[in-house]
Amino acid sequence: MKKVRVGVAGYGVIGQRLADGVSLQQDMELVGVADVAPTLSVRALREKGMPYNFYVAAPEGRPALEAAGIPISGSLEDLVQSVDVMLDATSAGVGAKNKELYAKYGKKGIFQGGEKNSVADVFFHGYANYEKGLGAQFLKLTSCNTTGLIRAVDCLDRAVGIEKVAITIIRRVADPGDYHRGLTNALQIDKAPSHQALDLMTIMPHVQATGILVHTPVTHGHIITVVATPKKSVTPKDVEEILDQHPRIRMVSIDEGFLGNASLFRYARDLGNPRGDMYEIACWRDSIVMSGNDIMFAINVPQESVVIPENMDAVRACMRMQEDRIEATETTNRYLGIGKWRNLK
Amino acid sequence: MKKVRVGVAGYGVIGQRLADGVSLQQDMELVGVADVAPTLSVRALREKGMPYNFYVAAPEGRPALEAAGIPISGSLEDLVQSVDVMLDATSAGVGAKNKELYAKYGKKGIFQGGEKNSVADVFFHGYANYEKGLGAQFLKLTSCNTTGLIRAVDCLDRAVGIEKVAITIIRRVADPGDYHRGLTNALQIDKAPSHQALDLMTIMPHVQATGILVHTPVTHGHIITVVATPKKSVTPKDVEEILDQHPRIRMVSIDEGFLGNASLFRYARDLGNPRGDMYEIACWRDSIVMSGNDIMFAINVPQESVVIPENMDAVRACMRMQEDRIEATETTNRYLGIGKWRNLK
Amino acid sequence: MKKVRVGVAGYGVIGQRLADGVSLQQDMELVGVADVAPTLSVRALREKGMPYNFYVAAPEGRPALEAAGIPISGSLEDLVQSVDVMLDATSAGVGAKNKELYAKYGKKGIFQGGEKNSVADVFFHGYANYEKGLGAQFLKLTSCNTTGLIRAVDCLDRAVGIEKVAITIIRRVADPGDYHRGLTNALQIDKAPSHQALDLMTIMPHVQATGILVHTPVTHGHIITVVATPKKSVTPKDVEEILDQHPRIRMVSIDEGFLGNASLFRYARDLGNPRGDMYEIACWRDSIVMSGNDIMFAINVPQESVVIPENMDAVRACMRMQEDRIEATETTNRYLGIGKWRNLK
Amino acid sequence: MKKVRVGVAGYGVIGQRLADGVSLQQDMELVGVADVAPTLSVRALREKGMPYNFYVAAPEGRPALEAAGIPISGSLEDLVQSVDVMLDATSAGVGAKNKELYAKYGKKGIFQGGEKNSVADVFFHGYANYEKGLGAQFLKLTSCNTTGLIRAVDCLDRAVGIEKVAITIIRRVADPGDYHRGLTNALQIDKAPSHQALDLMTIMPHVQATGILVHTPVTHGHIITVVATPKKSVTPKDVEEILDQHPRIRMVSIDEGFLGNASLFRYARDLGNPRGDMYEIACWRDSIVMSGNDIMFAINVPQESVVIPENMDAVRACMRMQEDRIEATETTNRYLGIGKWRNLK
Repeated sequence: MKKVRVGVAGYGVIGQRLADGVSLQQDMELVGVADVAPTLSVRALREKGMPYNFYVAAPEGRPALEAAGIPISGSLEDLVQSVDVMLDATSAGVGAKNKELYAKYGKKGIFQGGEKNSVADVFFHGYANYEKGLGAQFLKLTSCNTTGLIRAVDCLDRAVGIEKVAITIIRRVADPGDYHRGLTNALQIDKAPSHQALDLMTIMPHVQATGILVHTPVTHGHIITVVATPKKSVTPKDVEEILDQHPRIRMVSIDEGFLGNASLFRYARDLGNPRGDMYEIACWRDSIVMSGNDIMFAINVPQESVVIPENMDAVRACMRMQEDRIEATETTNRYLGIGKWRNLK
Repeated sequence: MKKVRVGVAGYGVIGQRLADGVSLQQDMELVGVADVAPTLSVRALREKGMPYNFYVAAPEGRPALEAAGIPISGSLEDLVQSVDVMLDATSAGVGAKNKELYAKYGKKGIFQGGEKNSVADVFFHGYANYEKGLGAQFLKLTSCNTTGLIRAVDCLDRAVGIEKVAITIIRRVADPGDYHRGLTNALQIDKAPSHQALDLMTIMPHVQATGILVHTPVTHGHIITVVATPKKSVTPKDVEEILDQHPRIRMVSIDEGFLGNASLFRYARDLGNPRGDMYEIACWRDSIVMSGNDIMFAINVPQESVVIPENMDAVRACMRMQEDRIEATETTNRYLGIGKWRNLK
Repeated sequence: MKKVRVGVAGYGVIGQRLADGVSLQQDMELVGVADVAPTLSVRALREKGMPYNFYVAAPEGRPALEAAGIPISGSLEDLVQSVDVMLDATSAGVGAKNKELYAKYGKKGIFQGGEKNSVADVFFHGYANYEKGLGAQFLKLTSCNTTGLIRAVDCLDRAVGIEKVAITIIRRVADPGDYHRGLTNALQIDKAPSHQALDLMTIMPHVQATGILVHTPVTHGHIITVVATPKKSVTPKDVEEILDQHPRIRMVSIDEGFLGNASLFRYARDLGNPRGDMYEIACWRDSIVMSGNDIMFAINVPQESVVIPENMDAVRACMRMQEDRIEATETTNRYLGIGKWRNLK
Repeated sequence: MKKVRVGVAGYGVIGQRLADGVSLQQDMELVGVADVAPTLSVRALREKGMPYNFYVAAPEGRPALEAAGIPISGSLEDLVQSVDVMLDATSAGVGAKNKELYAKYGKKGIFQGGEKNSVADVFFHGYANYEKGLGAQFLKLTSCNTTGLIRAVDCLDRAVGIEKVAITIIRRVADPGDYHRGLTNALQIDKAPSHQALDLMTIMPHVQATGILVHTPVTHGHIITVVATPKKSVTPKDVEEILDQHPRIRMVSIDEGFLGNASLFRYARDLGNPRGDMYEIACWRDSIVMSGNDIMFAINVPQESVVIPENMDAVRACMRMQEDRIEATETTNRYLGIGKWRNLK
């Protein structure tokens, strides 16, 4: 079978991981990555011996890239012409501009959560609305928090029906290594409702959602508490079992040593995962409680890597590589090595 | 009228503020404070010229205190004999031991949230169950988060009836200047349900409560999100108006510049409040949203000072200085200067 | 004696403290303060009942100020006309523009460390070069780190002669309540030499200085380590005694409980100092060591308040209120209450 | 050639990395690792499919390990009997107890910086005193900061002679994932001189050293500033060139994007290094300045991984695998992949 040819625009926190993810998909071929400047990530690519071809995303960036010794395979336009689909992980707003280039050559484009919804035909989540993405030209993925949150809510919704959710997002404010933003000894609140709650309703219009977001000065993983009203009566044990069956949810407990978001980052490093990444969200077994008939629980969202699997799903959907939601997500999972740990149980 | 004579055991973060609070109550007299060692707070008391008499809480502490030049007025036992009621703000566990001394001399004792409930006859909150404290010998106050939370929930409950609440506590992990505990670049989750939810149900047994607590590496103010199920249908505007009438709740907004817990600390410093303290909790107007018929909103709890007013209420209750809840809390508020800003509106 | 009339432009972190400092000087009169918007500090001024007259620093700011209920006494130009000298604590760059207004009315102007040196006739430090400021029209103060550092270096230099210093500045990255900048779980290094070392050489041209600055994610107090080469041989005890005699240096020790910058902030709060401010730098007795003949020690610089005394000195110098360096700084100290604690020893 | 058989006691932050390091040495064989409890690191070992044999370090730990499904190959005593040398990375104090076991079976033991010096015959650093370790039975490695610091100082000392150093250690207070210690919004100072300065003098007795250590609330990498007095006159360019030749020192610059310790952690993650580790210390080219004839510069020490190469050197020394310092360290470097990036230049 001919592999689907994929390019990645923007080789930053997300772009690098998309490139790594694509190169693990045996039915896809990573044609190359594009960026504008010799950032640390691009310098690291060179130090690794250029496992991926590099394209210049803007001509004015070429001198600095050359000065830094980065071998250049062509321009972003060259890259676009060589692929079937572009994964666009550029800074918010740039994707909308790049879209014109993708359209010019009739290529598909997949955008990240930072872009406006209007950039795409479909606002996409691999598990919640895979079918909507089938054959679409332009998809936009949900942001990291929303992606993780929907995994849990969609999973419960398919099992018992969810009427409404009220979420509290305890958001990590910067990624490790970020120096252009940060917060020092402060919690910061956003106006409610948070966009994640609104986005959830766009993807899952039959669920009512609201939420409050508070930024915290940490770099490893968001924690979200969810108060969900189910349509059927459930117990905490039921909830635990339902979530435990989701391939992209990892059930953990405080007693095992998972004390918080930093434990999960450390665990992923100790697993030897590249960059210390984890594709799964985690849910604490010992956080699941009832509020009357409502369920309450806490999840951890590894912000740098959580969207990678759903991006692979998006390629599958828009390129019609698989027609079936379960088949597609399982193919992604298999190539990314998600869920291997379950065999140990 | 004869003033009620009050002593304070433990001159730490809470003890200092209790002493300051008592000395502002025109119907109380601060007899003195007791501690065991020349901590920074005790050294500061000396540098200020000993506005409060100091008693040694344990004989073995005397040499170090004398070496540090702290004038000593007597022992803790001396202090206990000279007062009508002791406010005990010693480290968790010490209060239970001190209680024997208070009992020996037939004095009243008021303990803080760190002690076990069994130390006291009544688990007390100035607004929620003032009547229960009337004439009691031993009271225990709710902890900082619970005190702030109950102000809001009790206030809504009295207005429209509250059936249940699900809370997310985004807890500051240490006070400014704390070096014996801390958290660095990590969120830490506790087993659910949080004790604050359980404590709320002890004080307000007709309300069902659950909650999840996450520790965050900051020092200024806890933020709690509350999802509350009212018995009557309400709008966000209703909630805002109800909370705004509570003397110990300050309504703020992001547009005014209150971006988070650190803004409130800064504002209190800019107000010239001693130590930058604030007695009121804050509620963000722009956090109030609906989740179906449920109300969701966020409050800020200034952990170092929030319990001071309710401690003053506790003195009033156990000494029967006022029989009426509203009269008592208003007397406390007037002496502490709470609510003066409302006259500006 | 007629009081010197002073105005303050910019009512932020520094401006507020300048206003408070001026109002404590019995030979000065605070005419008013000016700012452009209803910031939290301006809102706090209103909540305190407007102890200072408020002027609008830019006409376009008036509507928002009026909407926030801030009583307005006039424009910045009105204020300038009513004073003898302006203390300018506006954002970096604005002072240079304001200078034209000061010049227009022949008023004196004192600028803060954020402005370019070219804004002023004299780069000023109360202890190190008071004489240079005498009668000058425009002075610029050193920044917080440089002000604290020079106190220590000048003091040692006058006692034993200092040939050169190599400093490491462990800089707090934001003030409490800052949300427009911050750093999360990261140390950040600046290109060497740091501007503080260069500034020291401008003020003390006979001393050679270099330094490295590292930003750290904390909000309370910079710590600077100093490696100083003295002209005469000294012992750590000598250094301790010399520094201890400086009115604006407070000698502390770890054994007393001063474990770091946060202890000093806490201590100042416990002292009841407005805003938890401290005018003195601190030097740890147990940090003083020898490196061959060089001295090494660590100081703590309370960034929000450290420059206030030297600003008062600057008013004294440019207005020729005192001709003598010692007399001037002692007058400032007396009115600010600096050094009162020494009487307790 | 027969491989040297190595065991690792303590499978924590350091122990894991020692095991990984040994398994990369083609002339060593990792027999197994030992620990007492199913920590996250041990759980990760299991999830990875037990690439290393696991031994129980204390019999009382066996039930919990079995309950967690960890396959057990024997006891620590079994492991000791099967090896030539033990790398001991247990908690401080445990190594001294384990030493008895190593002695009982006549095995060599290598301890980490947390143990007391008296545990070992030789206090060891691969570059500075390799010869002293030759054939010794018990070696103790320098701690992370000292290891990194000595690399730089020894390198300069061999090139131009170093008379004395004065260091400022800006210490990260916890590793990522640490929940048992931490610091929140505070800098903490230790009594001077710091142990790192004293340790340097033990390893390099001809150099005089002092230093001040300040703990900072971050998790990625210590930064040390060094003021060094050379015996010969040097320029910053000389220093840069000398340091650049050291295989375990990586010269970086702010202009390339290395803004601080977090940049280096991110870069190591982007390189795909396991756990985001880096074996090299970094030195900022743009930090190198002169203070008179003294050199001043800043280095970054990746605390979790920096000691791994010197531990491999220690195995080589005590087992007399190589007699020559340069040959030994280069063998270690080759197997660990240190310095590969230089080929790109």
